[in-house]
Amino acid sequence: MQRNAQKLLEKIEKNKMTVGVLGLGYVGLPLAVTFAKKGVTVLGFEKDTKKAAKVNSGINYIGDVSDSDLLFCTQKTKDLSATSDFSRIAEVDAVIICVPTPLDKFKKPDMSYIETACETIAEYMKSGTFIALESTTYPTTTEELMLPIFETSGLQLGEDFWLCYSPERIDPGNKVYKTDNTPKVVGALGEDASELALALYGLAIDTLYPVSSPRVAEMVKILENTYRLVNISLINELALLSGKMDINIWEVIDAAKSKPYGFQAFYPGPGIGGHCIPLDPFYLEHIAKNYNFDLTMINAAGRVDTIMPHRMVVKIGFALNRHNKPISGSKFLFLGVAYKSDIGDERESPALRIISEIDHKGGVVGYNDPYIDTIKVGEEKEFYSVKLTESALKDADCVVITTNHSCYDGEWIAKHAKLVIDLRNSIKKESTTVVKL
Amino acid sequence: MQRNAQKLLEKIEKNKMTVGVLGLGYVGLPLAVTFAKKGVTVLGFEKDTKKAAKVNSGINYIGDVSDSDLLFCTQKTKDLSATSDFSRIAEVDAVIICVPTPLDKFKKPDMSYIETACETIAEYMKSGTFIALESTTYPTTTEELMLPIFETSGLQLGEDFWLCYSPERIDPGNKVYKTDNTPKVVGALGEDASELALALYGLAIDTLYPVSSPRVAEMVKILENTYRLVNISLINELALLSGKMDINIWEVIDAAKSKPYGFQAFYPGPGIGGHCIPLDPFYLEHIAKNYNFDLTMINAAGRVDTIMPHRMVVKIGFALNRHNKPISGSKFLFLGVAYKSDIGDERESPALRIISEIDHKGGVVGYNDPYIDTIKVGEEKEFYSVKLTESALKDADCVVITTNHSCYDGEWIAKHAKLVIDLRNSIKKESTTVVKL
Repeated sequence: MQRNAQKLLEKIEKNKMTVGVLGLGYVGLPLAVTFAKKGVTVLGFEKDTKKAAKVNSGINYIGDVSDSDLLFCTQKTKDLSATSDFSRIAEVDAVIICVPTPLDKFKKPDMSYIETACETIAEYMKSGTFIALESTTYPTTTEELMLPIFETSGLQLGEDFWLCYSPERIDPGNKVYKTDNTPKVVGALGEDASELALALYGLAIDTLYPVSSPRVAEMVKILENTYRLVNISLINELALLSGKMDINIWEVIDAAKSKPYGFQAFYPGPGIGGHCIPLDPFYLEHIAKNYNFDLTMINAAGRVDTIMPHRMVVKIGFALNRHNKPISGSKFLFLGVAYKSDIGDERESPALRIISEIDHKGGVVGYNDPYIDTIKVGEEKEFYSVKLTESALKDADCVVITTNHSCYDGEWIAKHAKLVIDLRNSIKKESTTVVKL
Repeated sequence: MQRNAQKLLEKIEKNKMTVGVLGLGYVGLPLAVTFAKKGVTVLGFEKDTKKAAKVNSGINYIGDVSDSDLLFCTQKTKDLSATSDFSRIAEVDAVIICVPTPLDKFKKPDMSYIETACETIAEYMKSGTFIALESTTYPTTTEELMLPIFETSGLQLGEDFWLCYSPERIDPGNKVYKTDNTPKVVGALGEDASELALALYGLAIDTLYPVSSPRVAEMVKILENTYRLVNISLINELALLSGKMDINIWEVIDAAKSKPYGFQAFYPGPGIGGHCIPLDPFYLEHIAKNYNFDLTMINAAGRVDTIMPHRMVVKIGFALNRHNKPISGSKFLFLGVAYKSDIGDERESPALRIISEIDHKGGVVGYNDPYIDTIKVGEEKEFYSVKLTESALKDADCVVITTNHSCYDGEWIAKHAKLVIDLRNSIKKESTTVVKL
């Protein structure tokens, strides 16, 4: 092992170092807390000064972080603190980058967050710094986008700094698998970097799974989410066909699950949402073009899911039509705008697109979501969550169950509503006033 | 319960009846033996008189049937016998149809086997007959194709006969899950039929999973296999891209498997084969057209898999090119022509298409398969399995591992061959003379 690497390894093994976590969002904050809980000194970097101040005051803003853990690490042991002063990167021995990797409106990857993070690190890092990226991105990012930026610092890979890619596997709301007990894939550039990565992450994560290179690790993450995208798209499409064929797709899925091998159940819904599944596969589609390669399956999945919310609007319109009502002027109550059950995150949520289209077509829109007080639809319109009451249900011409929050009682909703469009199989009983996806 | 149904139910419960199994192939023969092993009298109907004679002599011709079980049922207890005389359908109390449902050359379902079976049953069945279909087919087949044929007999559904669809779930070569211990989905037409179906199958099958209608059961089977088709297509496509990006897809899959939820591993290969996955989804695509519905995901999967064998030929050609050799005149040794490992079935096997194209392009083709002595390629050409020896490996310009039979020792093959195209990840060690999918 190279001498500087050896020095850093000893620091890690003796836990005499500071880990910097760059970006204190839904990936970075749980990771920072996970390290700090194990007694590792963590300095969080967050450009949003309000968030940094919250962390320093022990005020939690991420669902998957426990309030008491954050308080403990920031107020009692003080192992975790946050700053918006990025020049303090010079103080840390390792930086783990947890910045967003969104797509722009045209589904092109927006790499600016990663690029800015790398430029900032290159400006301030000292010799002897270990760097890891956790953000989901296309294969080759670590080696071909990040490494050249770090080299502008004049520091040398393998001498002064080491590089690794280790994808986050956060599943918001998962009660069993958290940051510390979800096995973590680690792909480093070179053997020293690999040893350092395993030593560092080993301080906080129960199980590590090393792979031979960053690009393998990058592809692992894309495969995991592409698998989900493709299977959700398949079941969404089969749900639409089943509706036409008078087949209950939910019953079909439950029966298929009785096969004891070779099947994993996915459930249909009004479309894909969140920050991973609707985005990650299109990172791969983007880089594939660089290799003159057309990804038929991802492309097809994208086509199915892009149109799903619109198809739900059509379904709603035709159901109302059977009650001799148009969309225009009818009163709607949408139940749930989060992209999945029991979380307060509406990013990329199909409910927003459905609401937007119904609103645009003249529907009078109301919504309830116990986790989300207000939503913005389009450029200017704002809606506020209303109380879910019997009279709110009775008052609506059409109730649409867009998210299956576990507090929603399907039978109670069906009992009081004139018409329910149940996009989440919340209502088991058959009824003439319930239309299922 | 209707009176005739009640009578038949009593006969079933007392095991005083004869079950007819129509078609003694890879589904029907294991099913017939499973019933007979439980002491049910079974009469097998098989138009191939040679096969019927074999069964009657206790000579096994299906891999998933144990020789001793067949001997026991046909020679000792004599609970199982076979006939080619279909008028004897009049003797049985239940008929289970296990005929093939192939696609024609243009991927259109060939329903003639089911139609002929139904016509024959309609001609000979007595009042009081229970009928089940096990062949994979598109949803609505039982209700809309079969029922009208049975009604031409003058007998009445629910009075004289009962109808059910219960898809076979045979997985050839599976050592754990056989006919009797694989849960079986049952969708009958009406409550009497459902009770009869559960009583009858309950005599032979450990776990039954009743669903509300035949069309739901039909869709279950299609979903199971479409799930597999779509996921194999996805991983095949990602394997091709990974090859271009210098990423080992096998390593990626193994690492993704470390995710403890939300992922199921599929492995790439030279294309899909067998009698289920390449066929079943296209049954659904066929009936979807009747509903003006385009199945984007199945369509995309079909496109990926149709071209896979050709892409393998391209891969082989370019690998040879790096050895300064053309396909034409080069000697090839293909290892494995079965569509999956450790079975002797080459139906729809991608190996055949690859061999055919290499042969057509002037390659000198040889093959080895311990389970398949001879193959027919195209309309007239026949090949015979050669012995797999060191000199056979050394003699070939190019060895292609098309099927991962467990008797193939990848490292030994790599040691003696000039060039190996390993399409099944049989060779773990990296080498300049090994090209992986």
